Amino acid sequence: MHELTFFPRGDGLTLAELASLTGASLGEGADPALRIAGIAALSEAGPQDLSFFDSKRYSAELSATRAGCVLVSPKNVGLLPSGMPALVTASAAIAFTEAGRALFPGAVLPTPATGSHGVSLKADIHREARLEDGVTVEAFASIGPGVEIGRGTIVGAGAVIGAGCRIGRNCRIGSNVTLTHALVGDRVILHPGVRIGQDGFGYTAGPAGLVKAVQIGRVIIQDDVEIGANTTVDRGGVRDTVIGEGTKIDNQVQIAHNVRIGRHCVIVAQVGISGSTTLGDGVMIGGQTGINGHLTIADGAQIAAVSSVAGDVPKGARWGGTPAKPVRDWFRELMTLSELAQRGRSPRKTDE
Amino acid sequence: MHELTFFPRGDGLTLAELASLTGASLGEGADPALRIAGIAALSEAGPQDLSFFDSKRYSAELSATRAGCVLVSPKNVGLLPSGMPALVTASAAIAFTEAGRALFPGAVLPTPATGSHGVSLKADIHREARLEDGVTVEAFASIGPGVEIGRGTIVGAGAVIGAGCRIGRNCRIGSNVTLTHALVGDRVILHPGVRIGQDGFGYTAGPAGLVKAVQIGRVIIQDDVEIGANTTVDRGGVRDTVIGEGTKIDNQVQIAHNVRIGRHCVIVAQVGISGSTTLGDGVMIGGQTGINGHLTIADGAQIAAVSSVAGDVPKGARWGGTPAKPVRDWFRELMTLSELAQRGRSPRKTDE
Amino acid sequence: MHELTFFPRGDGLTLAELASLTGASLGEGADPALRIAGIAALSEAGPQDLSFFDSKRYSAELSATRAGCVLVSPKNVGLLPSGMPALVTASAAIAFTEAGRALFPGAVLPTPATGSHGVSLKADIHREARLEDGVTVEAFASIGPGVEIGRGTIVGAGAVIGAGCRIGRNCRIGSNVTLTHALVGDRVILHPGVRIGQDGFGYTAGPAGLVKAVQIGRVIIQDDVEIGANTTVDRGGVRDTVIGEGTKIDNQVQIAHNVRIGRHCVIVAQVGISGSTTLGDGVMIGGQTGINGHLTIADGAQIAAVSSVAGDVPKGARWGGTPAKPVRDWFRELMTLSELAQRGRSPRKTDE
Repeated sequence: MHELTFFPRGDGLTLAELASLTGASLGEGADPALRIAGIAALSEAGPQDLSFFDSKRYSAELSATRAGCVLVSPKNVGLLPSGMPALVTASAAIAFTEAGRALFPGAVLPTPATGSHGVSLKADIHREARLEDGVTVEAFASIGPGVEIGRGTIVGAGAVIGAGCRIGRNCRIGSNVTLTHALVGDRVILHPGVRIGQDGFGYTAGPAGLVKAVQIGRVIIQDDVEIGANTTVDRGGVRDTVIGEGTKIDNQVQIAHNVRIGRHCVIVAQVGISGSTTLGDGVMIGGQTGINGHLTIADGAQIAAVSSVAGDVPKGARWGGTPAKPVRDWFRELMTLSELAQRGRSPRKTDE
Repeated sequence: MHELTFFPRGDGLTLAELASLTGASLGEGADPALRIAGIAALSEAGPQDLSFFDSKRYSAELSATRAGCVLVSPKNVGLLPSGMPALVTASAAIAFTEAGRALFPGAVLPTPATGSHGVSLKADIHREARLEDGVTVEAFASIGPGVEIGRGTIVGAGAVIGAGCRIGRNCRIGSNVTLTHALVGDRVILHPGVRIGQDGFGYTAGPAGLVKAVQIGRVIIQDDVEIGANTTVDRGGVRDTVIGEGTKIDNQVQIAHNVRIGRHCVIVAQVGISGSTTLGDGVMIGGQTGINGHLTIADGAQIAAVSSVAGDVPKGARWGGTPAKPVRDWFRELMTLSELAQRGRSPRKTDE
Repeated sequence: MHELTFFPRGDGLTLAELASLTGASLGEGADPALRIAGIAALSEAGPQDLSFFDSKRYSAELSATRAGCVLVSPKNVGLLPSGMPALVTASAAIAFTEAGRALFPGAVLPTPATGSHGVSLKADIHREARLEDGVTVEAFASIGPGVEIGRGTIVGAGAVIGAGCRIGRNCRIGSNVTLTHALVGDRVILHPGVRIGQDGFGYTAGPAGLVKAVQIGRVIIQDDVEIGANTTVDRGGVRDTVIGEGTKIDNQVQIAHNVRIGRHCVIVAQVGISGSTTLGDGVMIGGQTGINGHLTIADGAQIAAVSSVAGDVPKGARWGGTPAKPVRDWFRELMTLSELAQRGRSPRKTDE
């Protein structure tokens, strides 16, 4: 299937090794010496692949799979095709992630797009920039004065690191990223086309038109943050824009000036967060959702996709809709409207 | 009007030639030798321009147009100003497109932004990359090891082609595009800032925070695909992300990992398609619509703009709304709510 | 607080100077010789900072602030903590903007990301491009033949300026911007990753699939326009795409072909404007809103965030919702639905 692959397989791991690695137990009749070299979706997997099942949506694919082994939770063991070797664990998804990382260590982090490590002679590095040993800078990257970059970090082709920025160790700054007015921790991943640190959107209306407000804050990106392709993060106007430790942000998200995002948040693609809003820790925001400015989304809150948040959201709440409200209320509204519209077209209604 | 133009006019074509080219017939009294050199909207057109009319919305513009000739369908001939030369065809829009392509052959495909063909000495091309004759690579493009590029393809300034990618013939890879982990067919157009092949957004929640799942699939882009500026397409996690032959994708669209898009689909700007969703052939998705993960949108389905698809969509269906449902049902809901709200404010209501 | 700052403070200004500059009057007991060196949010400000208060939302922050001086409107003077020096003006927001610009003149306009002025030897500038004196071009920027750039303009690292483009004076073309088929006025700011002038999204369905229509128009960007990071503006198909004088556009906005935007408009992040739509002067569009094609949004209209405009909007109207309607009607619909859904779950309903 993958006759032309970007992530070649190695020698693989035995089921015994995978069980030990993931804390799973071997299913009935599974051969502990069976060797697994890859991971794949149920419908694509071959006899050397580990696959995984955790949604009834894929029951048909499970029945027909040619996978060498399937990770399942105890409650789904009965759904396995007869004779299918299994690894059984209550956390099949976590185990699948762990197995994938062990089988494809080269895929855990982005690598230089053009394949070489070290500092390219075709990069433009200011003499007053300080790079630790073991930094890679690809061709046509520009690094300004006063920049500091920690060892193990890769700066991709065509990336631009503005004057005075600090980047920690083992980061991945993707191709064509622009980073200015920012301090970046360790193990941060910025995917291609990310824009960090440009002016926020701030004007006041004067007699001769809109007057641009200065934006004198910074962007602070803490350790282990990952930011998706073409996402934009404006620097703060009157305080810093902050993205907390371990937070993961998908592609094409917009983070406005002065926003503060807590730790271990998950923000899905095309979300927009308006200026001066604060997210607590562990907040999850579904795709394409918009959040008004100057709000607080408290710790652990979850906002459904395609919602629009117009007020503060309490701790641990699950909200959705436009304007967002508790998910139960939102669903009730959707159902109420659907029923009213259906009733409206019934013959009985016409007779009234 | 176009005193400073990027697409200069040539000698033009006669109405007879245009009629022959497009299959249109000459309107009553139209001079077959009349020469047309350009195309323009009704309100902008001059005596050397061909314009076209297919929507009553523009009736006023039609009455006042100074165009040299107007393409119309037979049913609209009566709306033409007296004496206006016309080309008449049931498919005025198609004929207008064909005429434009014939009059402006230099505008059919993007050209090098900086004007020169051939391989720039300022590009960075790995010695193990293989470029067929007739490939153009502009300045500051980076091409990694193992890359193969077919003849007639143009790689724009600052584009980055990651190790091992294959690109077919007569493609246009725009300025500042990033392409990694991808196989690209012939005649594919990627506009500036497109991001192809970066890691998908996949994590599992472990005790120490979110653990990044490896993404070992590819992006497969088939022949004649066009992808708009700053659109992002993540590579597959456990299967390939695929964009089928002839599919056209607008600007700032987000395609997540493992998505499969069929042939000849049309996806308008700012759409987001979540992971592992499959689109059939000939699917049309209106602008800003979001589609949940793990769904199937069957052949020929059409989803209205600003909708949110939360379930599978049957073949040929026309759906819209949040969550998306058949367009008739959606419209009925909108109307029902509007009526209820209006009734709510009537004096009669107050009296009850 | 800002131990590592990108915008160092200068000697500052006295309250007397700030009062004179902004037209504010000194609050009771404020020392006209008090020196202010920075601006900050209420919660971040120190004794050398000017802060400002204009929303009850921040009353707690006002009580606790350590700011050296606070800008307030006359009606809010009573809310100031006892003894807090104030500058009092009916237009506190405007005064705060003016003070910020005076205190941080280096932050008024983007500066070269890599710190140097002049034309980099590492840029690629076509011999037939004409740059006035005092133009800065950073490394790895590409400038095509026939390009003209006015004095004081900065072209950022990795930017691509296509053949024949004209850019006026004192513009800021950000890093990794792509600009083709465009004429740009004076004092225009394009933030990093902006894409201007690529083909619009136009096809007609022929027997062999979708046929690409030529796009022969231009993009006209008038004086004092600002465009946010990763925003895309397609060139016109059959007329020009125009962005009027003084208009401000946020990040990740999509402007399709043939769109005409008037003067002094404000368009917030992630908005999408479909082809051939016209906006008048002074129009404001909230974030994530979508506007259909071929519409007219008249002068001074305001569209709420996350709305979807499906018809023409009259002059000065305030609309919102999907489809957008007068904001009062939209709110009434939201309230009606909310009430119906609540009633639906009440015990009384169950008894019926």
